[in-house]
Amino acid sequence: MADRKSFGSDNHTGAHEAVLRAVIEANAGDAMAYGADEWTRRATAELRRAFRAEGDVFLVFNGSAANILGLSLLLRRHEAVICAESAHINTDECGAAERILGTKLLTIPAPDGKLTPDLIAEQLSARGDDHRAQPGVVAITQTTELGTCYAVAELRKIGDFCHANDLRLYIDGARLANAGAYLDCSLAELADCADVLSFGGTKNGALGAEAVVVMREPLSADAPYLRKQQLQLASKMRYLAAQFLALTEEDLWRRNASHANEMARRLAAGLRDVPGVHICFPVQSDAVFAQVDRRYIEALQRDWFFYVWDEKVSIVRWMTAFDTTEADVDRFVVSIRSIAEGAGPG
Amino acid sequence: MADRKSFGSDNHTGAHEAVLRAVIEANAGDAMAYGADEWTRRATAELRRAFRAEGDVFLVFNGSAANILGLSLLLRRHEAVICAESAHINTDECGAAERILGTKLLTIPAPDGKLTPDLIAEQLSARGDDHRAQPGVVAITQTTELGTCYAVAELRKIGDFCHANDLRLYIDGARLANAGAYLDCSLAELADCADVLSFGGTKNGALGAEAVVVMREPLSADAPYLRKQQLQLASKMRYLAAQFLALTEEDLWRRNASHANEMARRLAAGLRDVPGVHICFPVQSDAVFAQVDRRYIEALQRDWFFYVWDEKVSIVRWMTAFDTTEADVDRFVVSIRSIAEGAGPG
Amino acid sequence: MADRKSFGSDNHTGAHEAVLRAVIEANAGDAMAYGADEWTRRATAELRRAFRAEGDVFLVFNGSAANILGLSLLLRRHEAVICAESAHINTDECGAAERILGTKLLTIPAPDGKLTPDLIAEQLSARGDDHRAQPGVVAITQTTELGTCYAVAELRKIGDFCHANDLRLYIDGARLANAGAYLDCSLAELADCADVLSFGGTKNGALGAEAVVVMREPLSADAPYLRKQQLQLASKMRYLAAQFLALTEEDLWRRNASHANEMARRLAAGLRDVPGVHICFPVQSDAVFAQVDRRYIEALQRDWFFYVWDEKVSIVRWMTAFDTTEADVDRFVVSIRSIAEGAGPG
Amino acid sequence: MADRKSFGSDNHTGAHEAVLRAVIEANAGDAMAYGADEWTRRATAELRRAFRAEGDVFLVFNGSAANILGLSLLLRRHEAVICAESAHINTDECGAAERILGTKLLTIPAPDGKLTPDLIAEQLSARGDDHRAQPGVVAITQTTELGTCYAVAELRKIGDFCHANDLRLYIDGARLANAGAYLDCSLAELADCADVLSFGGTKNGALGAEAVVVMREPLSADAPYLRKQQLQLASKMRYLAAQFLALTEEDLWRRNASHANEMARRLAAGLRDVPGVHICFPVQSDAVFAQVDRRYIEALQRDWFFYVWDEKVSIVRWMTAFDTTEADVDRFVVSIRSIAEGAGPG
Repeated sequence: MADRKSFGSDNHTGAHEAVLRAVIEANAGDAMAYGADEWTRRATAELRRAFRAEGDVFLVFNGSAANILGLSLLLRRHEAVICAESAHINTDECGAAERILGTKLLTIPAPDGKLTPDLIAEQLSARGDDHRAQPGVVAITQTTELGTCYAVAELRKIGDFCHANDLRLYIDGARLANAGAYLDCSLAELADCADVLSFGGTKNGALGAEAVVVMREPLSADAPYLRKQQLQLASKMRYLAAQFLALTEEDLWRRNASHANEMARRLAAGLRDVPGVHICFPVQSDAVFAQVDRRYIEALQRDWFFYVWDEKVSIVRWMTAFDTTEADVDRFVVSIRSIAEGAGPG
Repeated sequence: MADRKSFGSDNHTGAHEAVLRAVIEANAGDAMAYGADEWTRRATAELRRAFRAEGDVFLVFNGSAANILGLSLLLRRHEAVICAESAHINTDECGAAERILGTKLLTIPAPDGKLTPDLIAEQLSARGDDHRAQPGVVAITQTTELGTCYAVAELRKIGDFCHANDLRLYIDGARLANAGAYLDCSLAELADCADVLSFGGTKNGALGAEAVVVMREPLSADAPYLRKQQLQLASKMRYLAAQFLALTEEDLWRRNASHANEMARRLAAGLRDVPGVHICFPVQSDAVFAQVDRRYIEALQRDWFFYVWDEKVSIVRWMTAFDTTEADVDRFVVSIRSIAEGAGPG
Repeated sequence: MADRKSFGSDNHTGAHEAVLRAVIEANAGDAMAYGADEWTRRATAELRRAFRAEGDVFLVFNGSAANILGLSLLLRRHEAVICAESAHINTDECGAAERILGTKLLTIPAPDGKLTPDLIAEQLSARGDDHRAQPGVVAITQTTELGTCYAVAELRKIGDFCHANDLRLYIDGARLANAGAYLDCSLAELADCADVLSFGGTKNGALGAEAVVVMREPLSADAPYLRKQQLQLASKMRYLAAQFLALTEEDLWRRNASHANEMARRLAAGLRDVPGVHICFPVQSDAVFAQVDRRYIEALQRDWFFYVWDEKVSIVRWMTAFDTTEADVDRFVVSIRSIAEGAGPG
Repeated sequence: MADRKSFGSDNHTGAHEAVLRAVIEANAGDAMAYGADEWTRRATAELRRAFRAEGDVFLVFNGSAANILGLSLLLRRHEAVICAESAHINTDECGAAERILGTKLLTIPAPDGKLTPDLIAEQLSARGDDHRAQPGVVAITQTTELGTCYAVAELRKIGDFCHANDLRLYIDGARLANAGAYLDCSLAELADCADVLSFGGTKNGALGAEAVVVMREPLSADAPYLRKQQLQLASKMRYLAAQFLALTEEDLWRRNASHANEMARRLAAGLRDVPGVHICFPVQSDAVFAQVDRRYIEALQRDWFFYVWDEKVSIVRWMTAFDTTEADVDRFVVSIRSIAEGAGPG
């Protein structure tokens, strides 16, 4: 990685200093293992309160694990999951949902990464036919893998549709903080429609910690055993808990996400009139997807790290983070502009 | 947990200060995610060197995960695992091996927790019978769940037997450090007989980190995908790697384990002639199993935390750790002695 | 196989002529596939009636499949199964329960193959501990793998214990017919204690057909999908159904089983005073287990086919079937007697 | 089902009389169970010979089971399967591949149901990326779910591409007989490109029996255990074997398939100029897919049974079988024509 700030991913960052401090403070003598400690008690209570969750909160190591645990609380043994084709569980978890849960993903092309009741309804036509995979859960991502954000009203419509159709709703909230910041709403408002959701710490300044939040009971009942079977029961769990204690204190999560979102908007704004650069989706979180003149990419990657999202159509993804500075963004914009100017008309 | 030192488990401790320091140092700006960082490169190279491993090293979050990943590298799809009845994978992982790997465990009663070629051989009689589960892997634990330790010659015999009988050998090394310290031998000597093994950091002073070491190639080939599917790919992996960098620097792992072992021996020695206390197994690591007069237990647990291992026969487990002090042990011994004296003849 | 009758297994027989006739009759032009045919409607209705089942009946191909489907209706995703060590699901299905259901079997040594509430209760001590596999289902076999038979009162006690302890009860009824014949009771009486059970046709004169009977609703709801996923949905299901129509007509199943049971009793009676032959278990179905002077076995196997059950203790299993004749038994007894006489004192 | 011949599926038929006769003949006294009988020996030897298979042949109960067993011989534990979106394993097996094998299906839209090396190549771009499911097997169907047939040269190209790219090739041959008949080639020619394939009996006149044919060794080695775990080991296997003995005798399979194919061609020919009826795909097996004026369908279904394949675009599937007669087809054509004439211009 170059010395310069990475625009590759919000998990290229280190940890927020408050998170690190909390971990150090938790390193205070002996504590009961496997979550029977005071830090875990406080962190999960705080998360339950913030989400207004009826059920319990379960800390796990990473985002894929949160998704698998969350889905496993909601799926009957034979059921399938409806999700967007671009969903992380479909594209970026190496087939973990199929391998660990044995579930089929019924995927829906969704140009902006967002599902709607109408799109979901199309997947229900084979219900009751024992040859066809039977959907039991709808999984959406907030904010989506394309940087877009469901409005609270959109979430409510999906939730209502699911509950009217014997579907349970799971939200992959690896970047839920960015949605809360973008929509300026509480975690409870974001979560209200869901049965279970995850809340990501890792991309928000943690060392590595995610929470699975159970909104409706009795869905918590099996979670401790499923978490253990899914290899997610931390023995020294206080160190996961401490990270969430830091992120929830005075809503650090919101400040971190707001800043990252603002940096993404600043980046998009800085590129608005650059020839050969076209912003693809509304910038509603910490990601900017842009279709970029192929000639720019190699030149730009000499100094900056970022991913080409779709080689075929020359779309790149630029991500900001809690620690991206205005200066980082501005220098990046300058680089792009200067490359674009040098390139001349395409 | 009482103010006093826990004798409950070596995972009731916090992290060693050198581990914490290494984590803090790794918090240095951006780094590639998912293990493509410098810390991971260095830590895995160091571990490969220390184990003289042909294959790669894969960092994971906890001991159950290390066991599952390790076994998954060795098992053909239909195969079963031979292990001791007391094996952690059988008793303490909530059925993860069956759930995640779909494998049957063929368990062998082993009074001291140790398998032998003869015990293993008894499990091979149904080979080739398609009604019977077919063993493909032998899993042993070093040091065992009962605090005993396989000698290097014993390991070699098991390894030779396995390889002569189309069985692969896995070692659950959650406490491999304690074995290295007890036997005063290198990690490479401990590992030589195995195809794959784990090396535990968590019980040795880490915040939470384990390594899966592949001794023979081409067994590494599928490991990256299996690790991801098994929910063990850390995005900010440098923080796992940093912990191992601390533990391997000047063999901190050995110093930690030696100290813990010594404290266990001190505890056992201090109790040698106490009436109503009978040490059950050779003390070869950081655990002391003792059959204790039932009347002592409740009194002792008022001030000290530890687990009753087997209620029926009144056996308790006392564990020390890298941070147990001589004073901790001595006060604990005094407590037991004074309770024993107060109790009078049983 | 020798020309003589096999005493190897009740599945060495062919099909009963009435079964074959029913299959031929079902070969009458087109019919809807996958069970939407008239034969299946009639056979499952007849079985529901005979078992007084609240739920539906699902036809499958073999006994292992019936067990797996039955258990899958009863197990929560994380749960384990309590069964006897000698249970077919534990010893003779190649680890299918672990592989297909991901469930751990918590096995109990049971000298006569029968569980009791006390034996089951011992497996419940770790409930609520997320490190330990959590039992959700008790699986018993009727008649057992050792040829013994639970009395109806014994079944009721187990059922009551299960339902009082949040356990569901499954009966592997591969030889349920033999129990009905031995106890001279109805299928409904045998099944009343259970949540789900299987009813075996194959060992009772079918070509190959088993039924999964759901006694309590809403346990049927997921069965069609689980049956399909478990590869048990027959396209031309009428041919499975026809077999059960034959077996249930005028209780052919009972006549077949009664005869087999009687032949086993005749065999045991004929051997009562033969030196070197000791009948091990009460003969309560179509199996005779005998500890036999090692010298007899090879001689006897020259002319007759049967299995050595346990080489170490020289126990053999002799099985009769619906088509074993008195003459078959008598000739077999004569063979054994003459070998015993020739052998002289052991 | 109406009295008239079903055009719903080739599994609406009964069994061919030769198949039934073979089953009756196999009902001859005792035989070893689980495939150690003479019928199984002969049938599998005959199939090995016909396919020129290096490996063994394994009989199973149905087509889904054959697919799952076949794939399980070819997939490494973490791997995914490339297949057409229309593949039976993707659409009609209730998610069995995901549930039983834990594998992800990487599906490719293929308008005529056929894959090509180019289409397969597009699925290989994420190889080596541990976030992405890794393809290990290509599964094609011959003849396809859309009634089309790969030419032998097309098969060879796919096979060559697979083997040059570390992919194994599986053929779902539920209707392989129809391909052999259509292409007028041997089973060995059809199978040569594959590593493993299935050969369907059920849709070709069997009561219910499919074969898994292993073309390359050592792929047979694990098959007995996987078959048992996958609930496909028939105890009275001679009755499965007898069906294949009948189908292979004087290539009855080919005569059955040729006739069915011819009836489909006759049907298509009869409809060529009917207004409002458009044949969608080349008729290369026993299926005719037609886009039909919506007004005809309900009227036609009053007297004839068949499935609407795609409601949205008004495509129906008409299937013939070994026992469809010219008169059946002609009456069906007359019905369609008369409805079309009555309907007038759409």
